[in-house]
Amino acid sequence: MAISTKVKGSLESASWIRKMFEEGEEMKRLHGDKNVFDFSLGNPDLEPPSLFKKKLKALADAPISGMHRYMPNSGYSETRKAIADYIVEETGLPFTEHHIVMTVGAAGGLNIIFKAILDRGDEVIVPSPYFMEYRFYIDNCGGVIRLVETHEDFSLNLTAIEKAIHEKTKAVLINSPNNPTGVIYDVESLKKLGSLLEKKSQEIGQRIHIVSDEAYRRLVFDKISLPNLFQHYPHTLRVTSHSKDLSLAGERIGYVAVSPLCEETEELVSALVFANRILGFVNAPALMQRLVAALQRNSVDVRYYEEKRDLFYDALRSYGYQIVKPQGAFYLFPKTPIEDDVAFVKDLQSKRILTVPGRGFGKPGHFRIAYSVDKKVIEGALPGFKEVAEKYGLKGR
Amino acid sequence: MAISTKVKGSLESASWIRKMFEEGEEMKRLHGDKNVFDFSLGNPDLEPPSLFKKKLKALADAPISGMHRYMPNSGYSETRKAIADYIVEETGLPFTEHHIVMTVGAAGGLNIIFKAILDRGDEVIVPSPYFMEYRFYIDNCGGVIRLVETHEDFSLNLTAIEKAIHEKTKAVLINSPNNPTGVIYDVESLKKLGSLLEKKSQEIGQRIHIVSDEAYRRLVFDKISLPNLFQHYPHTLRVTSHSKDLSLAGERIGYVAVSPLCEETEELVSALVFANRILGFVNAPALMQRLVAALQRNSVDVRYYEEKRDLFYDALRSYGYQIVKPQGAFYLFPKTPIEDDVAFVKDLQSKRILTVPGRGFGKPGHFRIAYSVDKKVIEGALPGFKEVAEKYGLKGR
Repeated sequence: MAISTKVKGSLESASWIRKMFEEGEEMKRLHGDKNVFDFSLGNPDLEPPSLFKKKLKALADAPISGMHRYMPNSGYSETRKAIADYIVEETGLPFTEHHIVMTVGAAGGLNIIFKAILDRGDEVIVPSPYFMEYRFYIDNCGGVIRLVETHEDFSLNLTAIEKAIHEKTKAVLINSPNNPTGVIYDVESLKKLGSLLEKKSQEIGQRIHIVSDEAYRRLVFDKISLPNLFQHYPHTLRVTSHSKDLSLAGERIGYVAVSPLCEETEELVSALVFANRILGFVNAPALMQRLVAALQRNSVDVRYYEEKRDLFYDALRSYGYQIVKPQGAFYLFPKTPIEDDVAFVKDLQSKRILTVPGRGFGKPGHFRIAYSVDKKVIEGALPGFKEVAEKYGLKGR
Repeated sequence: MAISTKVKGSLESASWIRKMFEEGEEMKRLHGDKNVFDFSLGNPDLEPPSLFKKKLKALADAPISGMHRYMPNSGYSETRKAIADYIVEETGLPFTEHHIVMTVGAAGGLNIIFKAILDRGDEVIVPSPYFMEYRFYIDNCGGVIRLVETHEDFSLNLTAIEKAIHEKTKAVLINSPNNPTGVIYDVESLKKLGSLLEKKSQEIGQRIHIVSDEAYRRLVFDKISLPNLFQHYPHTLRVTSHSKDLSLAGERIGYVAVSPLCEETEELVSALVFANRILGFVNAPALMQRLVAALQRNSVDVRYYEEKRDLFYDALRSYGYQIVKPQGAFYLFPKTPIEDDVAFVKDLQSKRILTVPGRGFGKPGHFRIAYSVDKKVIEGALPGFKEVAEKYGLKGR
């Protein structure tokens, strides 16, 4: 056999998702791209802000000598300083460039965090439903994912988290706004989580970190402001990217920020920088680092996503779907009217609608809709959603 | 403790290299950058070719809609096709876009290869001296590095390789032009290696791949042409980047090419694409993928490095240093006149010359000079090299 047994196993177990993806591709070939309503991938469809384009043009017009060369594995100090300054503004905490590591997107950031903190067999607690890639990221570094249930409304279940903590627990991984639910954890629950982890860290004699995946941190609706974990638990690492707020998903640019209030901050940052190097990222892409430095206070127009959330949520509710109303990101995670989410997703496929079954996120009986698409795609799909709802006798309004 | 025990161990064992690096930085602060001759890092100091700048400007002037979004984890098909076409020209073999995976530099490429092919405990044979990061890349994926000696002139020792092969052997990792020696393996030795691996694969009932790290493939001197592994062993994976040939080291853009003559090519490529995703690279940076597509037949002016090789090699030889003459890359790897390479490197430091001791590459009794620097830096350092040679009684010419 040419490949690793473990990878072969993963490829095979993932194959039904791939099969559906391939069926989707086949469908597009048959019916034409325009006649297939694809909500399967969270690929931000906006263009980057005009300031980004302006800065790119300025650099292309007048290149800086050496601007494509290696820099320290942590990234340019100017970029790290710009980000630190922004977080100081946000939090009032004494962040400096020494608390920031530039990364190959949030996925790169999560991988270097787990490499830095996990020994073989160490555990990371993850509230479920969850972004399925976490399982791999944790496993890559020899760690073990420990899923815990959330409440019915997908809010944090602190009792479940407390029960899951033991001496091997190294971190709790929080993702808010959440993929796949769009839910934002409220400040009260985060304060309680902080107190809980403070107490349990004492009990087990081992610091438990919060790893806060804030990939969707700027995509927040209803004029609410995202609670800031740094203010509620000192031992917090933020990982985020500019994939969504600046629509740069393909460019792989993000960062990890380590709270200056962490225990052994310096050692932690050294370990992250080392991990960035040895995992083969080496450094975040140079040109993008330079560009995002000036864009820390910019983002795409969030109302673009909020309007789609309103349109989609209201329509699906009116057909009788049960959905927790998302306050951020660009996902809906409704219940499926039947238990078998894969069968239901196939029903939607018969209407040329592509979504992902909830079991792909550890939560069967649901399905995920990624609505980072043109409004017309949503409007085109609504009749199909309605027909399938009627098929299963959902009570519309 | 905040960080992983394993990472802490690595940070500590690496600390004498860091100590020297820090001493170098301190030296620069004391004497000024210009008065320190830094040959410690292989950071290409040329600018990218003018066509690169032209293409970047064209894209910045007229951005393509969606050009910063996610694309398939393997990369843009246009870019993969451009690379495949180039390799077809080189080799006459039936490469297509389906044999190419775009990666986050060569380091990213090596990591996805090892993830794709290694199970825990599997071994990769690496001729020594070797690029020290290989040890981490292999270990990241649960593999074990198995170093084998090279001959006195750093050419491949096939007897040593044959002895090292056993049932756990999954690959032989070849790096030519070599870091740290600059040596190029000749076509005869590569043919013999191919025959050996064919025979041994049969014997152990397990395919042994050649992983060919060609990071320096365009930096070749003396008008020789680099032997092409694809033509001498069907089960070859090439990994390379545009860090050196296009001077884009900070941009993290490279690729893996899988021979169409490999066993189970399709499965191997699927595993690589999967590894690109789950290791957190996701995809190679989008903008750079677009730019390098048009630059497969371009490179920086190799004579720039060749002239420095000549200057540096001739001078050091004339002072009595023993050096295998490198035919590529931008490194010299002379013997140290005393056994203790760390002590010798400190002697050079006293002349404000920064180099790396050979033990950092598995070969004590040597030291590495990276000459990807301005000619003036070389000229400024030569008197110091001469004085240290004289101190140890080397016989100059």
